[in-house]
Amino acid sequence: MLRVGYPGTIAAKLFAGFPSEVALIPLTDKLDHDVDIDVWIPDPYPTRAQRVVPHLHGVKLVLSLMAGTEWIPSAMGQHVTICNAHGAHNVSTAEWTLSAILALLKYFPLYLDVQSSGIWKRRFEATTHYTQITGESQPHYPPVMQEELTGKTLLLVGFGAIGKEIERILSPFHLEILRIARTARANPPVHSVSDLNSLIPAADIVVLILPRTPESHHLIGPSQLGLMRQGAILVNAARGPIVDTDALVHSLQAGRIRAAVDVTDPEPLPENHPLWKCPNLLLTPHIGASTPQFAPRAIKTAELELRRYMAGEPLLNVVQVAI
Amino acid sequence: MLRVGYPGTIAAKLFAGFPSEVALIPLTDKLDHDVDIDVWIPDPYPTRAQRVVPHLHGVKLVLSLMAGTEWIPSAMGQHVTICNAHGAHNVSTAEWTLSAILALLKYFPLYLDVQSSGIWKRRFEATTHYTQITGESQPHYPPVMQEELTGKTLLLVGFGAIGKEIERILSPFHLEILRIARTARANPPVHSVSDLNSLIPAADIVVLILPRTPESHHLIGPSQLGLMRQGAILVNAARGPIVDTDALVHSLQAGRIRAAVDVTDPEPLPENHPLWKCPNLLLTPHIGASTPQFAPRAIKTAELELRRYMAGEPLLNVVQVAI
Repeated sequence: MLRVGYPGTIAAKLFAGFPSEVALIPLTDKLDHDVDIDVWIPDPYPTRAQRVVPHLHGVKLVLSLMAGTEWIPSAMGQHVTICNAHGAHNVSTAEWTLSAILALLKYFPLYLDVQSSGIWKRRFEATTHYTQITGESQPHYPPVMQEELTGKTLLLVGFGAIGKEIERILSPFHLEILRIARTARANPPVHSVSDLNSLIPAADIVVLILPRTPESHHLIGPSQLGLMRQGAILVNAARGPIVDTDALVHSLQAGRIRAAVDVTDPEPLPENHPLWKCPNLLLTPHIGASTPQFAPRAIKTAELELRRYMAGEPLLNVVQVAI
Repeated sequence: MLRVGYPGTIAAKLFAGFPSEVALIPLTDKLDHDVDIDVWIPDPYPTRAQRVVPHLHGVKLVLSLMAGTEWIPSAMGQHVTICNAHGAHNVSTAEWTLSAILALLKYFPLYLDVQSSGIWKRRFEATTHYTQITGESQPHYPPVMQEELTGKTLLLVGFGAIGKEIERILSPFHLEILRIARTARANPPVHSVSDLNSLIPAADIVVLILPRTPESHHLIGPSQLGLMRQGAILVNAARGPIVDTDALVHSLQAGRIRAAVDVTDPEPLPENHPLWKCPNLLLTPHIGASTPQFAPRAIKTAELELRRYMAGEPLLNVVQVAI
């Protein structure tokens, strides 16, 4: 009987759709004895999952509930097949991305501060914010109090499942979309990552939604930030180390760009880190995937991959093939 | 020669597309003498526009730059034709509406507070917020830190130009959309306003985007707020007096609903008004139309209506016919 270890922290009923011919074995992060399992579904929180690893024996297949699996190969070695929850995070992450862009363009951080102060006429601070961050001269009249997404140019760095979903939910806004992935392709046109520096200056918004790999480490550094338009928005919906944090802090403190990040480097971001206090920044503490629909959707994705594995069919979401 | 009075506060160059055979007369709100004009384009801010009214003579046509024109008929009387800037506010107001809904669903007010505090682990307050406002029991694990828009039910109260634009930009989210307007119609199905109370309980989100009229005054009062689902979101992108403010304050203070409002009653909202401090509220100080594209777009709309007027063609955006 196939033994499937799953996070004991997640309610067992969420695994009720799994094939009846597997043995489901709950593994909490307090696990204090060794277990033999064939398939492992790690806890979605890497620090919890990593505590279990030393006790696991016999694992041939890892079914991650997450899109990013960068810690798993080194923890589990080369002799296991690793699959991610391809597609399960499209909705939540794409929604977070659009929400964060709109919150910055509508000056919601400023207006929430105005709301706390209870002073209606402070809305005219928005016009100052507009001229300072965009570098546009102040319109004579009427005052500008927010910006539009419609018609802007957006550079999508990463064009996997989530990148495509971001493009889909942006479709009503008549954006010009530029796309970058590891390798160039057509229909729609996707540039290779070597075109990054030449495309950045065209973008009002740069969205990072690519995997963390050795190649993507500090992909956005001082040069790339320096190439961004005055007041352009950098969105990191991927992984913190893809951006050089020191360079980001510098660009924000200099008033050069705006940013929305759901991930940081280091993560968790320590108290007193200068990023917390940077201007023109929306920082959310890695919440992009954490909706009520997350667990059922990702567990269903894992279940379908498990059924293919048991039937000897090709797996669809492989990120590492066992050697 | 047709005399067209326009707001002297707006740069004259924005009216450069107007027909060369009209006399363009700038009128500031400091106007201290009477003027004879045929067509009046009021300042977009009603208080500024109203200061000019006593000095105007001969006005036959008012071309408002706004969508809402409720103050104009009583100020100008029944012997003028009044047109609004139909369509010119679709993009900005629809974007504000979507942005405000997403900001509440993604808990951005909470996360901006977390960001100010610099304490990453405060993200778990989101799970408490979720259970309190939605009334859902807390999921065992993983924690919920934001909600999704996708798949929700949205009641659109008002189905004019802006209402249709809101529906268009919501199209990627697979929402169930319910629609209400003054009179029922089909394709798509639109209910009459008499169905309001029966439709409210089905909605996760109620969006107000209808004109201010005697009939829409306090359309949303204690009964309607009481019929809303626990944690449902009321969005007022229309006019403040459509909602009974005291009842809204009560519902918010009781933790029954969430709300996003760009308009208030009274407006401006005075310091110390209890609405400012209500929980689960995003309040922006009437900024929905005020983007950099607002003036050129609305002035173009007025120009096209003026050309129709001069050519004796039917006007398209009439909100009051002169008698």
